[in-house]
Amino acid sequence: MIAKELMSTPLQFYFDFSSPYGFMAAQRIDALAQKHGRTVDWRPMLLGVAFKQTGAAPLTEVPLKGDYSRRDFARSARFYGIEGFRMPSRFPIPTQAPGRLVTWVRRAQPGAAAAVAKALYAAYFLHDRDISGPDVVAEVAAETGLDRAAARAALDDPAIKDAFRREVEEAISRGVFGSPFVFVDGEPFWGIDRFDQIDRWLATGGF
Amino acid sequence: MIAKELMSTPLQFYFDFSSPYGFMAAQRIDALAQKHGRTVDWRPMLLGVAFKQTGAAPLTEVPLKGDYSRRDFARSARFYGIEGFRMPSRFPIPTQAPGRLVTWVRRAQPGAAAAVAKALYAAYFLHDRDISGPDVVAEVAAETGLDRAAARAALDDPAIKDAFRREVEEAISRGVFGSPFVFVDGEPFWGIDRFDQIDRWLATGGF
Repeated sequence: MIAKELMSTPLQFYFDFSSPYGFMAAQRIDALAQKHGRTVDWRPMLLGVAFKQTGAAPLTEVPLKGDYSRRDFARSARFYGIEGFRMPSRFPIPTQAPGRLVTWVRRAQPGAAAAVAKALYAAYFLHDRDISGPDVVAEVAAETGLDRAAARAALDDPAIKDAFRREVEEAISRGVFGSPFVFVDGEPFWGIDRFDQIDRWLATGGF
Repeated sequence: MIAKELMSTPLQFYFDFSSPYGFMAAQRIDALAQKHGRTVDWRPMLLGVAFKQTGAAPLTEVPLKGDYSRRDFARSARFYGIEGFRMPSRFPIPTQAPGRLVTWVRRAQPGAAAAVAKALYAAYFLHDRDISGPDVVAEVAAETGLDRAAARAALDDPAIKDAFRREVEEAISRGVFGSPFVFVDGEPFWGIDRFDQIDRWLATGGF
């Protein structure tokens, strides 16, 4: 009975909208889950809040790592066959607005969360639109079929702001310190380069 | 002509003897190179020197990342089928002594460098021997067939100390900030989780 229950547990997919590896993971997580009969729970978080605990900084701002990271972002996109990836003109950006939108959609229309998250990521990493601004976020929401005014209002709603803040805190209390970060039946995996381990974990029930 | 010349260029494999992922990479790098008709140049470095530039700290000492890392070390070892891996009682350790030994062997008997490096890694990550001490390092050298007294003397030789120091500085000037770190015909790859990219890079000549 436990096994059957686990089979229906969604993969918990944590990501920051300013994370290139999070963007790449977002292109692949649904297929990985579907392959094993699972669904995905899309959970935006804020790397900046996690970095306060770990002392980390945005990769591109770290000496030595910065140059390597930019090269690895582009190469990894090619490796995964993700076309059109380019580093946005402004990077990194604050991601409260897109995070709040997904928080709202997960409550108002859960089935739309994945599509909205992917549209926001595409806007930023494929089309160089600055999704830090609430008006742009509402515009992208409207492009996916959501009501623009309702979306825009949600971004200023204290209840949504508070809900997102609490979700970010909960993520960090669970040990989420990077993006992407995936829980599979409680087992934590950090990084798109752990997707092969996730694949085997789901196939075998753990190793 | 250039292509043929590249074909004979060794993979430059940088690693710190206190790095669990470096240890795991050391179990796999020769097979990866051989698959593509390449050899491996084993180049010890010192993460501590790189960390001074990047501001990084040993993974296990970072809040949130520390717990995850220990779990991921063990899980990755199982994923790669590396038997007997265990975190040493003392971790991390200073790795000047094993680094100097390999520096000496690369000069005195280049063909023995890989075997010596693997023996040192095995002593630390399989058999919990503290390889920070020069006497232990000389002992491990002797176990691989090298002359114990000559090895022990090399560890105190100012010329070897200086050579290793310069090699570490050169590595960092090339952008090496982590372990393992591999150059394939000038292209940098950080982490054992980039071995699949290295594999494709070698197969296709770059992507």
